[in-house]
Amino acid sequence: MYSNPNYGAGNLHHSQSVSSRRGYTPSYSNQPGYSYSPGPPSGADPQLWQWFSAVDTDRSGSISVNELQAALVNGNWSSFDLDTVKMLMNMFDTDRSGTIGFAEFSGLWKYISDWQGVFRHFDRDRSGSIDGHELSEALRTFGYNLAPSLLVLIEQKYASAPTSGYGPPPGITFDRFVRACVTVKTLTEAFQRVDSDRDGWVTISYEDFMKIILNAP
Amino acid sequence: MYSNPNYGAGNLHHSQSVSSRRGYTPSYSNQPGYSYSPGPPSGADPQLWQWFSAVDTDRSGSISVNELQAALVNGNWSSFDLDTVKMLMNMFDTDRSGTIGFAEFSGLWKYISDWQGVFRHFDRDRSGSIDGHELSEALRTFGYNLAPSLLVLIEQKYASAPTSGYGPPPGITFDRFVRACVTVKTLTEAFQRVDSDRDGWVTISYEDFMKIILNAP
Ligand SMILES: [Ca+2]
Ligand SMILES: [Ca+2]
Ligand SMILES: [Ca+2]
Ligand SMILES: [Ca+2]
Repeated sequence: MYSNPNYGAGNLHHSQSVSSRRGYTPSYSNQPGYSYSPGPPSGADPQLWQWFSAVDTDRSGSISVNELQAALVNGNWSSFDLDTVKMLMNMFDTDRSGTIGFAEFSGLWKYISDWQGVFRHFDRDRSGSIDGHELSEALRTFGYNLAPSLLVLIEQKYASAPTSGYGPPPGITFDRFVRACVTVKTLTEAFQRVDSDRDGWVTISYEDFMKIILNAP
Repeated sequence: MYSNPNYGAGNLHHSQSVSSRRGYTPSYSNQPGYSYSPGPPSGADPQLWQWFSAVDTDRSGSISVNELQAALVNGNWSSFDLDTVKMLMNMFDTDRSGTIGFAEFSGLWKYISDWQGVFRHFDRDRSGSIDGHELSEALRTFGYNLAPSLLVLIEQKYASAPTSGYGPPPGITFDRFVRACVTVKTLTEAFQRVDSDRDGWVTISYEDFMKIILNAP
C-alpha cells in the first residue's frame, strides 16, 4: 500500500518582493464626504496606488480583511473564502498590523496576478474552474506526485459544491485552487521536516500532528 | 515536551435522527409565476416544511449548496463559509444526491439548532462570538484537554479575522465554531484509530497523514 511520496521540489515560491519603504509624505485632503485619505508614497506606481485606493473603501490608508474579501472575486463572481483571504493576509501582512498597507499590497497584488496566470494555464478547457484532471496536472507540475486517492480527496475538499451522482462535477474556483496548492505545499514540507531520513514515514505525537494541521491554511 | 493528549470521550454526537420516509404525494400547483412545487409529505411538521420551502428558493423540492449558504447567517449577519456548508451537506445528504431533501432537512435543522444552543451556552459574555477563553471551556467540556499552544492555534485559525496587535481579538462566529469543534473531533478520532496502544504517538505514512487531513472538514 505504501508508495514513496517523492514530494518534489515544491516550487510554489511565494514572491516576497515587498519593498519595505515607509515614511512617505502624506497629503491629506479634507473634502466634504471624504475621510482623511493619505496620498501615495513618492515614487509609487500610480496604477498600483489606484487599485490599492479602490480596495481601501473606508480610506483608512490600509486594507482590512473585510475590504480585501469584498475586493476579491472569482471568475464566476463568487467571493473568496475567508480562509483564503486570511491566508493571503498572513502571508503579506509582514508587520503583523492586522491590515495590508501599500508597501505590503504590492507583494500581495503580484502574488495574486502570478496565481491568475497559473490558474489560466492549467484551466485547459477554459471553463473558469479547475477539474480533477487539471488539478492533477498542476500539482504534478509543481513536483507533487500524489496517489490518485489523495487527488480525489483534494478535488472533493476544494470543489465549490459537494460531489453528487448528477450533473457535471463542480470544479475548483480560483481562490480555492490557490488555497489547495498552498495547503499541499505547507503540509508536505511540514511532514518532510519530521521525516528526517526521507523514507515517507514519521513517528509523531498528537500535539505535533495537530500543530502541523492547524498551521496550514 | 510530550503530554498525554487524554483525548476524552469526544461527545459531540452528530444527531442522525433523519427519518427516511419517502414516497410522499406531490401536489403540483401550476400558478403563473411559480415553478412546479411539490407539497409537503403527509404528516410533515408544518413549521419545518415552511422553513424548508423558504430555503428552497428555486422550488425544486430540494436544497442546493448555494441555497443553503444563502439561508445560513451568523449572529453578525455574515454568511456561513462554503467549507462549513459543505461539511453540513456531507453529513446530512445521506442519499448522496448532492442536495438536501425534506427528510434530510429535519436532521440538518435539528443539528444546527442543537449547536446554536451550545454556542449560546459557551458565549458567556454574549458578544455573539467565541473568544479564546470560551473556546477552551467548550473543548474541555467536550472532553478535549488540549495544550494551550494548540488552543491558541485553533482560536487564530477559526477567528473571523487575522490576529493583530491592535483592537479586540476578532473571535469565532457560529459557523466557524461548529467547524472548529467538528474538525478537532474528526482529527482526534482519526489519530486515535492509528494510535492503537494509546500512548499519544503514531507512526504514519505521508499518504495516510494526508488522507486524515483531507477527510476532515
Ligand atoms: Ca500590515
Ligand atoms: Ca477547467
Ligand atoms: Ca439528498
Ligand atoms: Ca463571546
